Amino acid sequence: MSKKDNIPYKIYLSEQESPKAWYNVRAEMKTAHRPILHPGTHKPVTEEDLRPVFCDELVKQELNDKDSFIEIPASIRDFYKMYRPSPLVRARFLEQALQTPARIYYKYEGGNTSGSHKLNSAIAQAYYAKAQGLKGVTTETGAGQWGTALSMACGYFDLDCRVYMVKVSAEQKPYRKIVMETYGANVTPSPSDTTNIGRKMLADDPNTTGSLGCAISEAVEAAVSAEGYKYVLGSVLNQVLIHQSVIGLEAKAALERYDAYPDILIGCAGGGSNLGGLMAPFMADRLAGKKSPRFIAVEPASCPSMTRGRFAYDFCDTGMVTPLAKMYTLGASFIPASNHAGGLRYHGMSPILSQLYHDGYLDEARAVGQRSVFEAAGLFAKVEGLLPAPESAHAIRVTIDEALKCRESGEEKTILFGLTGTGYFDLAAYAQYNDGTMEDYIPTDADLARGFAGLPDVSDAE
Amino acid sequence: MSKKDNIPYKIYLSEQESPKAWYNVRAEMKTAHRPILHPGTHKPVTEEDLRPVFCDELVKQELNDKDSFIEIPASIRDFYKMYRPSPLVRARFLEQALQTPARIYYKYEGGNTSGSHKLNSAIAQAYYAKAQGLKGVTTETGAGQWGTALSMACGYFDLDCRVYMVKVSAEQKPYRKIVMETYGANVTPSPSDTTNIGRKMLADDPNTTGSLGCAISEAVEAAVSAEGYKYVLGSVLNQVLIHQSVIGLEAKAALERYDAYPDILIGCAGGGSNLGGLMAPFMADRLAGKKSPRFIAVEPASCPSMTRGRFAYDFCDTGMVTPLAKMYTLGASFIPASNHAGGLRYHGMSPILSQLYHDGYLDEARAVGQRSVFEAAGLFAKVEGLLPAPESAHAIRVTIDEALKCRESGEEKTILFGLTGTGYFDLAAYAQYNDGTMEDYIPTDADLARGFAGLPDVSDAE
Repeated sequence: MSKKDNIPYKIYLSEQESPKAWYNVRAEMKTAHRPILHPGTHKPVTEEDLRPVFCDELVKQELNDKDSFIEIPASIRDFYKMYRPSPLVRARFLEQALQTPARIYYKYEGGNTSGSHKLNSAIAQAYYAKAQGLKGVTTETGAGQWGTALSMACGYFDLDCRVYMVKVSAEQKPYRKIVMETYGANVTPSPSDTTNIGRKMLADDPNTTGSLGCAISEAVEAAVSAEGYKYVLGSVLNQVLIHQSVIGLEAKAALERYDAYPDILIGCAGGGSNLGGLMAPFMADRLAGKKSPRFIAVEPASCPSMTRGRFAYDFCDTGMVTPLAKMYTLGASFIPASNHAGGLRYHGMSPILSQLYHDGYLDEARAVGQRSVFEAAGLFAKVEGLLPAPESAHAIRVTIDEALKCRESGEEKTILFGLTGTGYFDLAAYAQYNDGTMEDYIPTDADLARGFAGLPDVSDAE
Repeated sequence: MSKKDNIPYKIYLSEQESPKAWYNVRAEMKTAHRPILHPGTHKPVTEEDLRPVFCDELVKQELNDKDSFIEIPASIRDFYKMYRPSPLVRARFLEQALQTPARIYYKYEGGNTSGSHKLNSAIAQAYYAKAQGLKGVTTETGAGQWGTALSMACGYFDLDCRVYMVKVSAEQKPYRKIVMETYGANVTPSPSDTTNIGRKMLADDPNTTGSLGCAISEAVEAAVSAEGYKYVLGSVLNQVLIHQSVIGLEAKAALERYDAYPDILIGCAGGGSNLGGLMAPFMADRLAGKKSPRFIAVEPASCPSMTRGRFAYDFCDTGMVTPLAKMYTLGASFIPASNHAGGLRYHGMSPILSQLYHDGYLDEARAVGQRSVFEAAGLFAKVEGLLPAPESAHAIRVTIDEALKCRESGEEKTILFGLTGTGYFDLAAYAQYNDGTMEDYIPTDADLARGFAGLPDVSDAE
């Protein structure tokens, strides 16, 4: 039996082998990402600027560019035991189906009830809120993965959880709302009459179906105007990438057990939390000048922030109330076409990932059309027995493409990709693909120009 | 650190430790269950009687009362590696929440895309159909767990899969239908115009919403009237209990690693496939006169086949076209009230479990109301991080009740229960519970008498 055959289908680390600290890639970046700017003064934000909105400890993590490792509190490690270490799976059935000599591994983050990796950061943010003595937290959710994860985390720590859910999503995905309520969360379709900005939006357009930008603005307003509440966010931020490093740390340790190391690392990228987490310890190798994988970020052709966006200062929200971040962006006012069903709709990209991409450490960004994504998802579901989230299926698409290249070339490359979640709440999109009514959408240059026109005018002094 | 503390939260067997053979408890029963009878002649069915409907190898398994162990074919063991060995979880967070000295373990079968233990038998039945050179299989599904599992199994072996789905379910649970179609299954709402019996039902009542009995009858007709097709079933049958023994075999091996053994074993029981599988190797201990757990079957108060049914010969389907089985039954015409949302709606019970219960080897059956079931489900979801299927939550309810007794008595009992699946497709029922509109339903004696009145008149010669 060859060494290749000795590797089990699923590799589980023991609970003792779980990471005891998160990895903060920012501390080792060759070029620091440009500072986050106050939206009014355009000066770098301080801890004091952020404390009214975020928990104290999370503010520190957000601004921390010194510590490579940050200890994971025992309570969070306990919670992680419910669903972590997550399995690293050798995709033998997919390899067979593709007849590829490539060795394909995926880190599966969908095995918890929230159905995605978002829970890794949700439980951390809920913990720090509880430790600070807060009553609760507010947030927004679009498709619902983040809202579900945060509801679970708050349910566990007995924190009040107020979720502003984009109205059209709340109507189209009633089951998401029910899961959150089962975990005790208070879910408000946005815009609502519970905030000033919501009331203004409703007055302007009583029939609006809402937007993520408005939901963020409502959640922030709700946090700063209620005693004992802070706002939390599920992606993009540096703190979130720190928490999500648990994905990559586990994956690297599991591979090491079998003397395996990826030649290619592939992750889908919306706000960047999954790819940032999966790649973190491997990027450490790159930054240290060691052997490292080729890093590929996959994004939807309908929302191509890295492949067609600008590296510029922009608002993190469509409502333009948040600080400004230097990132790859399509402009805060860019919204993908309504027929885009594949997730990853965020207009920008994590400042850390953006800087790494700009500097050439993140090797490649690739945009894929949603029909090819669902084709890959269907094949994967059949041969690997897991129905992937559309977001995750972006990474599957590129993994398959790379594995087929190996079939042509005969190269036995090792590919690692992130399977971030399950598709149980995305079945309407699968139905569209199954019945042939799904369409691809690629924004025109004119579409993108409209988004770029709204970019704030910020001088970017080095 | 006490021995109790040394046990990890999740125990995973290695793939090498997976069972290589299923266990057939029937071969060791003290009293054989009464033979299955031909519906026309009332004589015990032979292999020849069953072969027009079922695959040859499955017919042999159905009638096998000689072999205690049946080898699991390599292809099935390969497929099992996708999601097995499933974790045995020490429910430490539930223990903490209940402040009980009891040690609670659950065997979690919901970690595959079909979302339940049904896949264990679906892949076996699909394998034997493929091995026999069939083109495809037919089946019925109600809530959809079985249809989803069979669709996955057929997708894997490239078998045609025709699912008759009770029309009202197909309409209420469109997502279940989409998952099956994503795996390539052909899903027909029942009754349909594709079969004689379906056309007759539609002619009698064009507005009928269908029933499981009619769907079974359509699936059987579709199988026997199409070249290269056989019918498959997801519970009740002896062959299904054989396949599901993999649950118990893994659970016992995982517990043995930590010198643990259950004092109480709890499983929900609809047709009996989960409880029969989980208890199988522990029942072997009982039948061999060794130490064994107290076995508790949990059923819904609204469909109380064991606690209030009769031990009698009855049809396995509401349509009364199948053979007759001696079992605990409410009568094939019994249908639980429409406000029953908690699953486990089958009118009868596995003949093996029925005989073991009749003979006192299965110690107790307990019926629970659905509101108390969803209360337990909500607590479990919060503290253990998994949203259970309503079916599974019946076992959780009784586990909690037994653990609370331990808190009173101070006894450190070890409890093992089966967590058969996840509740992602049952969120409408959760919403009912959350908003307080869920009602309990307990059939009156008169309700039951109507079901008993339809029992066939079969002399039960010993």
